[in-house]
Amino acid sequence: MPEPTLVTRRPVVIEWGDCDPAGIVFYPRYFAMFDAATGGLFQAALGMPKIRWIARFGILGIPMVDTRARFLIPSAYGDEVVIESRVAAFRRSSFDVQHRLLKGEALAVEASETRVWTVRDPETGAIRSHPIPPEVIAAVAR
Amino acid sequence: MPEPTLVTRRPVVIEWGDCDPAGIVFYPRYFAMFDAATGGLFQAALGMPKIRWIARFGILGIPMVDTRARFLIPSAYGDEVVIESRVAAFRRSSFDVQHRLLKGEALAVEASETRVWTVRDPETGAIRSHPIPPEVIAAVAR
Amino acid sequence: MPEPTLVTRRPVVIEWGDCDPAGIVFYPRYFAMFDAATGGLFQAALGMPKIRWIARFGILGIPMVDTRARFLIPSAYGDEVVIESRVAAFRRSSFDVQHRLLKGEALAVEASETRVWTVRDPETGAIRSHPIPPEVIAAVAR
Amino acid sequence: MPEPTLVTRRPVVIEWGDCDPAGIVFYPRYFAMFDAATGGLFQAALGMPKIRWIARFGILGIPMVDTRARFLIPSAYGDEVVIESRVAAFRRSSFDVQHRLLKGEALAVEASETRVWTVRDPETGAIRSHPIPPEVIAAVAR
Repeated sequence: MPEPTLVTRRPVVIEWGDCDPAGIVFYPRYFAMFDAATGGLFQAALGMPKIRWIARFGILGIPMVDTRARFLIPSAYGDEVVIESRVAAFRRSSFDVQHRLLKGEALAVEASETRVWTVRDPETGAIRSHPIPPEVIAAVAR
Repeated sequence: MPEPTLVTRRPVVIEWGDCDPAGIVFYPRYFAMFDAATGGLFQAALGMPKIRWIARFGILGIPMVDTRARFLIPSAYGDEVVIESRVAAFRRSSFDVQHRLLKGEALAVEASETRVWTVRDPETGAIRSHPIPPEVIAAVAR
Repeated sequence: MPEPTLVTRRPVVIEWGDCDPAGIVFYPRYFAMFDAATGGLFQAALGMPKIRWIARFGILGIPMVDTRARFLIPSAYGDEVVIESRVAAFRRSSFDVQHRLLKGEALAVEASETRVWTVRDPETGAIRSHPIPPEVIAAVAR
Repeated sequence: MPEPTLVTRRPVVIEWGDCDPAGIVFYPRYFAMFDAATGGLFQAALGMPKIRWIARFGILGIPMVDTRARFLIPSAYGDEVVIESRVAAFRRSSFDVQHRLLKGEALAVEASETRVWTVRDPETGAIRSHPIPPEVIAAVAR
C-alpha cells in the first residue's frame, strides 16, 4: 500500500469550558479535539466534510476501537495550540491515526487511535467492518 | 386537556468535569442535565427509555425550540443536587417543561423549555411537527 | 453610558461530537459556543484573552445569571455557521450579550444572556458582584 | 506496599447527549465517565468527595498522564451499564487505575490510566508531583 503522507495542522484555542477546576484542560476534551482532527484529516484528503464522505461511501462511520494518549504538558484557558495529524497505517478495514498536540515547539499531548471502516449490514442491521476503498487510501497517501 | 401532574425528582452529583476554572458548574452542563431530566420524565410516564418511545411513536425526537434558565446559586464539584421536572403545558404538537434544580431546600437553577413532537416527513425527508398522541398526554397527566 | 457598538463575527464548524442521535446539534453545545463567543467578544475589545483580563481586573469571572435561546433552524455535522455577538446593555455590575447564529443569511439560533462582573470577597471568600470598570465599557463601546 | 483491593461498581445510564449521529456513545464521553469513576473510587476509599480530599491533602488534583481505552461493544442511548474500577498499582507519586465498562456480563470498554499526585509548588507556582500519603494507599488497600 502507498505510504500515507498527508499531514494536517489544525489550530485550536483552549476555551474556558474546556478546562476544569484545576484550570487545565479536562482531558476528555482532548479526545473530542482529536476526533475533530481526524475528521479534518479525511476532509482534507477527500475534499468534502465527513457528513458527505460517509454518505458517499455508504458507511456508518469510523468508530474508535483503541486509543491512547500521553499528556506531557498541561494547557490552560486561552492557550493556542496546534494538532498535527496523520494516518500511520492502513489495514484492510481498519487504520491508525497519530496526533501530536503542540504548544509552540513543545509536544504537549501525543495520541494514537485505531478506527474501523464500518457499515450497517443491510440485512441484519448489525454494525460490521468493511474494506477501506482504495480511493480513500490513495487520497490520504497523496 | 388533562392537567399534567407527574413530577420527577432526579438526584445529580456534580462531577469534576462539570466544573470550570472558577470551580463552579460550567452552565452548558446544566442544560445537558435538564435534557436528561426531560428524558427521565417521559421515561417515568411511558415506562420505557426515550430510545424506545421514540421508536414506538415513530418520531425523530423532541428537539428544543426555546429554553431559558436562571442561575441563582452556583454549585461546585461534589455537590449533590436534585432536579425536579414537570410538564407545564401540552399544546397540539409542542409542550413546555419546567425544571427546578435544588440544593437542599434552596432553588439553585430554574429552567423552562419548549419542545416539539417531531417526525421526519416520509416523502420529503423534512423535519416537521406532529400532533402529540393522546396516550402520551394521558401518561404524563396521571 | 456609551452605546456598546462592537460586534464580533465568529465562524464555527459543527463537529461530529456536537451532534446527537437525531444528527443535529445537541443544544447544550450551542451554549458552550456562545460562552466562547462572549469570551471572544471581550478578547476583541480588550486585546487579550479572558485568562489575562480576568487576572488584570482581579475578578473571578463573568458567571451567567440568566440566558435564553430560541432554536429556529437545526444545524448538522459539517455545517459552517457564524456567531454574531454584541453587548446589548451594560449596567453597574451586570451586562447583557446577544448572539445570533447564522447559516448563510438565515438566523438559526438567537440567544441572550445576562452576566455579572464577579469578584471573590477577600475577607469572607464569598462570590459577589463588583462595578464594571469604565475602561471595559469604553473598550466594548468603541 | 499493600495490594489495592477496593473495587467500586458504578451504574451509568447512557443519555441522549452522550451519543453521536451514529447513535452510539461519542467515545470522549467514556473518558468523562471514567474520570468520575476514579473520583468515586477515591471517595469510597477516603469517605469524602474529591473536592474535600483534595483540600485535606493540600493537592491540586490527580491529573492524567497516560490513558488507553479499547472499545469492544458499542453502547446506545438508554443502555444501562456498570463501570468497575480498581487501583492496579501505586508508585511513589503516581498510580494506575483500571476500568471495565460492562453491559450485563459482557465487557464493552476496557480502560487503564496513570495519574500523578500533584501539588502546586508554594514558591514557584509550578505544578509538580508529590509522594502519595500512606493513608491514601492504606484506604484503597482495605
